[in-house]
Amino acid sequence: MLINNLNYRTVWMMDNSVYMINQLLLPFKFEIYQSKNYADTANAIKTMIVRGAPAIGATGAFGLAQAAMQYEGESYNEFKQYVGESFQLLNSTRPTANDLNYALNFVKSKMFAEGSITNSKMMAFEAAQEYADLSVEVCRKIGEHGSNLIKNNQNILTHCNAGALACVDFGTALSPIRLAHYSKKNIFVYADETRPRNQGMSLTAWELAQEKIPHSIIADNAAGYFMKKGEIDFVIVGADRIAMNGDVANKIGTYEKAVLAKENNVPFYVAAPLSTFDPNSKSGEDIPIEERSQDEVLYVSGVDENKKRIKVRIAPEGSSAKNPAFDVTPAKYITGIITEKGVIMPIDKEIEKFVKGNY
Amino acid sequence: MLINNLNYRTVWMMDNSVYMINQLLLPFKFEIYQSKNYADTANAIKTMIVRGAPAIGATGAFGLAQAAMQYEGESYNEFKQYVGESFQLLNSTRPTANDLNYALNFVKSKMFAEGSITNSKMMAFEAAQEYADLSVEVCRKIGEHGSNLIKNNQNILTHCNAGALACVDFGTALSPIRLAHYSKKNIFVYADETRPRNQGMSLTAWELAQEKIPHSIIADNAAGYFMKKGEIDFVIVGADRIAMNGDVANKIGTYEKAVLAKENNVPFYVAAPLSTFDPNSKSGEDIPIEERSQDEVLYVSGVDENKKRIKVRIAPEGSSAKNPAFDVTPAKYITGIITEKGVIMPIDKEIEKFVKGNY
Repeated sequence: MLINNLNYRTVWMMDNSVYMINQLLLPFKFEIYQSKNYADTANAIKTMIVRGAPAIGATGAFGLAQAAMQYEGESYNEFKQYVGESFQLLNSTRPTANDLNYALNFVKSKMFAEGSITNSKMMAFEAAQEYADLSVEVCRKIGEHGSNLIKNNQNILTHCNAGALACVDFGTALSPIRLAHYSKKNIFVYADETRPRNQGMSLTAWELAQEKIPHSIIADNAAGYFMKKGEIDFVIVGADRIAMNGDVANKIGTYEKAVLAKENNVPFYVAAPLSTFDPNSKSGEDIPIEERSQDEVLYVSGVDENKKRIKVRIAPEGSSAKNPAFDVTPAKYITGIITEKGVIMPIDKEIEKFVKGNY
Repeated sequence: MLINNLNYRTVWMMDNSVYMINQLLLPFKFEIYQSKNYADTANAIKTMIVRGAPAIGATGAFGLAQAAMQYEGESYNEFKQYVGESFQLLNSTRPTANDLNYALNFVKSKMFAEGSITNSKMMAFEAAQEYADLSVEVCRKIGEHGSNLIKNNQNILTHCNAGALACVDFGTALSPIRLAHYSKKNIFVYADETRPRNQGMSLTAWELAQEKIPHSIIADNAAGYFMKKGEIDFVIVGADRIAMNGDVANKIGTYEKAVLAKENNVPFYVAAPLSTFDPNSKSGEDIPIEERSQDEVLYVSGVDENKKRIKVRIAPEGSSAKNPAFDVTPAKYITGIITEKGVIMPIDKEIEKFVKGNY
């Protein structure tokens, strides 16, 4: 992705350090965080310096390579045990993100192919790099398939951040938008603020500004207004987990926008890698919804007039909040699911064809 | 309304001063603002120390009485001209609020019945007091009609603040909730945060906390989630203007909640005095939607850890926002409109009967 006119990935590895865009400081400060050892990389995932399932996966992969590189002993058995322990530490940082476990196994399964410490170190790095590159390629393909659906002069609504910052590059929902923009289509993006954590305001709008893609932030309350006015032609969002019947779990508010899109005859697309489909979830009812801290609703983080980061309480004392982090959008509201293999549409007829063979 | 266990109105007059709850300081500080002359009262409306159409109307009425009291000359003609000028000043503070003009005319039409300055001063105060009392009575009746619709053990969603703070007392949407609570019905209220100005979080939740009515604040994004889960039985909102076909202009986001309520078979009620109906608006398309400053989206106001009020920027530099303040909910999504004369339901058949003769 373009940042200050330079090309960046969200996370990369060089000279045994893992570098990542520090997302805790965005959108007010752009800073690269350098992690010099795998324990620090694990901590960076835990403290959400890096967030977004695909991005976490790649960071974990680099972390495991980093662990291998750090080993200074000469016993192959001890090395293998040490790598196993590092795997556990990295894997425990965000237990719900499926990509993390998947990525760590990807590296581990490749690094011990030839029985020497030196080879394993090199192959661990190569596997992690391959994983990150594959992730970029998957997102780029989602962008290609999705951008074909976007017409010139369209206004596009997106919710939350399913951008390059949530992946290694390109993003999921933002990848078709990027590629439509690169191919000189004239588009305009409405970015839902996405309360309570404001990822649409602080991450999506920031990415769009960096790429000079014309956009406006709107309050989540205003999306329906603009759809009814005919000012939104296309809605695209990411996904955290997709059930085998096409029900989509995604950031809270996605369901609201999907219902409103259907009511106003606006196409509603979900963009996600095939790895987002969960073979253990038959329908949305099988997907557990995380209830997060009420403080995310009661407080807001921003910068004061001296650009100093500050958290303010916006709720009265004596009031509490409920804070479901995700909701489930039933498949009937979704026009199509954009994957790296193409667009699943209509969902009920095509889903099996796409998902089969991916597990 | 109850505040710190004492009974308050939003605005009242005593010894030539107009007193009002300073809504700019809520929910973090409860303070009564004393306005000692009519110019200051006009300024209080302008700077939104008092807000909400019915509350503004009553404040304007008291302001005109205050102006009359302040007159120290002895010429009846000069007095009449001076009152006319005061009327203009008060009326210009918030040009779009219909209640303000209506309330000022209510006082002016009564105060000159007997041709003496002394009598006019007294009658101006009496008329303003009558206006405020009538406003309370209208809201109380809305509460009675509305609370009959609320069943024991129901969960109620409301959007924005159509509470006592927006009126002289009771509120419109919050009046049925208050009266259901007073009559010992077991109810629970979900208060939408209502971005961008957060009136649901900072005013509605505050009012509910003062009355000890069980409630939770939710992000606007979560309302659909709770409706789909079957956790909301009843939605009630206020109105800024109602067209003669029953289309309702109200705070941005009302339309979204109405569509979601219909989709989930949850009854959706609007509570408003009959004076909210605009005979000049045939349908919602005739109602102009105010576009407010984008700063309301890009900044948020709260308190820091020392309880000091502070405004923080939450948007990246380089991003702008669109900020429509209201939306129009078509009548087809509305179950009924609760007025002081009863519930208009079904809207298309009953509206003429209710509104006729009110103008």
